[in-house]
Amino acid sequence: MSRKPLILVTNDDGITAPGIRHLIQIMNTIGDVVVVAPDRPQSGMGHAITLSENLYCDPVVIDQYSDIEEYSCSGTPVDCVKIGTQQILVRQPDLLVSGINHGSNASINVIYSGTMSAAVEAGIEGIPAIGFSLLDYSMEADFKPSTKYVKRIAMEVLEKGLPPRTVLNVNIPIAKKSSDIKGIKICRQAQAKWQEQFDKRSNPQGRDYYWLSGEFVNQDDGENTDVEALENNYVSVVPIQFDLTAHTALEELKKWDLDA
Amino acid sequence: MSRKPLILVTNDDGITAPGIRHLIQIMNTIGDVVVVAPDRPQSGMGHAITLSENLYCDPVVIDQYSDIEEYSCSGTPVDCVKIGTQQILVRQPDLLVSGINHGSNASINVIYSGTMSAAVEAGIEGIPAIGFSLLDYSMEADFKPSTKYVKRIAMEVLEKGLPPRTVLNVNIPIAKKSSDIKGIKICRQAQAKWQEQFDKRSNPQGRDYYWLSGEFVNQDDGENTDVEALENNYVSVVPIQFDLTAHTALEELKKWDLDA
Repeated sequence: MSRKPLILVTNDDGITAPGIRHLIQIMNTIGDVVVVAPDRPQSGMGHAITLSENLYCDPVVIDQYSDIEEYSCSGTPVDCVKIGTQQILVRQPDLLVSGINHGSNASINVIYSGTMSAAVEAGIEGIPAIGFSLLDYSMEADFKPSTKYVKRIAMEVLEKGLPPRTVLNVNIPIAKKSSDIKGIKICRQAQAKWQEQFDKRSNPQGRDYYWLSGEFVNQDDGENTDVEALENNYVSVVPIQFDLTAHTALEELKKWDLDA
Repeated sequence: MSRKPLILVTNDDGITAPGIRHLIQIMNTIGDVVVVAPDRPQSGMGHAITLSENLYCDPVVIDQYSDIEEYSCSGTPVDCVKIGTQQILVRQPDLLVSGINHGSNASINVIYSGTMSAAVEAGIEGIPAIGFSLLDYSMEADFKPSTKYVKRIAMEVLEKGLPPRTVLNVNIPIAKKSSDIKGIKICRQAQAKWQEQFDKRSNPQGRDYYWLSGEFVNQDDGENTDVEALENNYVSVVPIQFDLTAHTALEELKKWDLDA
């Protein structure tokens, strides 16, 4: 009987994206891997779930030289975690990893990120979970320099577990070689926002439409942020919680006169 | 020149849903209202944004006896807030309200909720924001008993503002009349999860598919939760933050040996 950990792998760029293919290879060196990932790109899907459509989730062979069990799912990253844990796996996995995302999920990006929402969904289920992202949006991104960091963090989580009701948001700087990365820093989420720039156009019938784009604005010059760590070529690790209560605000609000 | 507050209204059930129509009427008694809401139901969309498709956002008349400016948007609730604040409104609104959602967004539902993600998106932009939800999924839900509570909370936020980087998650119990509701409680998010129940079927071509459904499981018997307040016929108000850092976990993780 295998004593290897059972590792569920998903992402939000789709099951054929180079980032998840690289992550699968790394996880395959430390555990038994099952992949349940979206059948197409699902970037920016946040914690969306599919309620009004049915879901397909079919076995698929992406790499004919591999014997890893893989499933392609028509839903969002969060759907993949739900269906993977409830319908595909025979037992709760020891670890869920999501990614490696093509592009940053540091700072406020965590809130829009399908990659991170998959990790959060696993966390809600009590499964240790990590979202990995590389700060390179290109489909030709080089994931090799990230390998030893991804493996080290995954093995540490498998060995030690995570503090209750937290998951990890791991972002990795662009590097030509592994040694260009200075190490790993435990950080907090930098305060930031996206400054939207809508591109307004007209379609051939004359109806206006918009493309959403924007610029990332770091509003945080405090210490120990993920953005700062990444700028200094460190891998950033932020523990993420899904109790969204602003506990520090409770007392202030209790002073309000809310007798309607 | 009008001194009335400028209020942006959105939701996730779509611009014609009874919940948003009721919310628009309430807001119209306290400010200048502009509506930018999804052109169709967007429940469970979480913090999804539209990146790979273009967005339409057209003026629309839902109520021909009203002179409120309304726009129907092809995107998610978060898209509506982005396009509303950046393209439609001439200045930053004094308040964003989202809802009134048909169904609970208490406890862990906050994380899947397009209603609440719209409020969070406004919060990221520094706009005071409130998501309202009624614990009745029906399209025939009676929103009238909620009126005085919705108005009271909105006016309090307009008067006092909100603690920095927080928004409010307001849930309202089902009631036959306003006086059946005992009052308003400031609460924390109850610890809970959804226990998935996938309904597996075969399509006419023999391909398996799934419907996602599930059962809400409250795992929290502690004090001062939103679920408890609602069970006791109080309106629950939870301050929500979008710094997802699990600050209490930082010290524990810093003890890890992460030299890769």
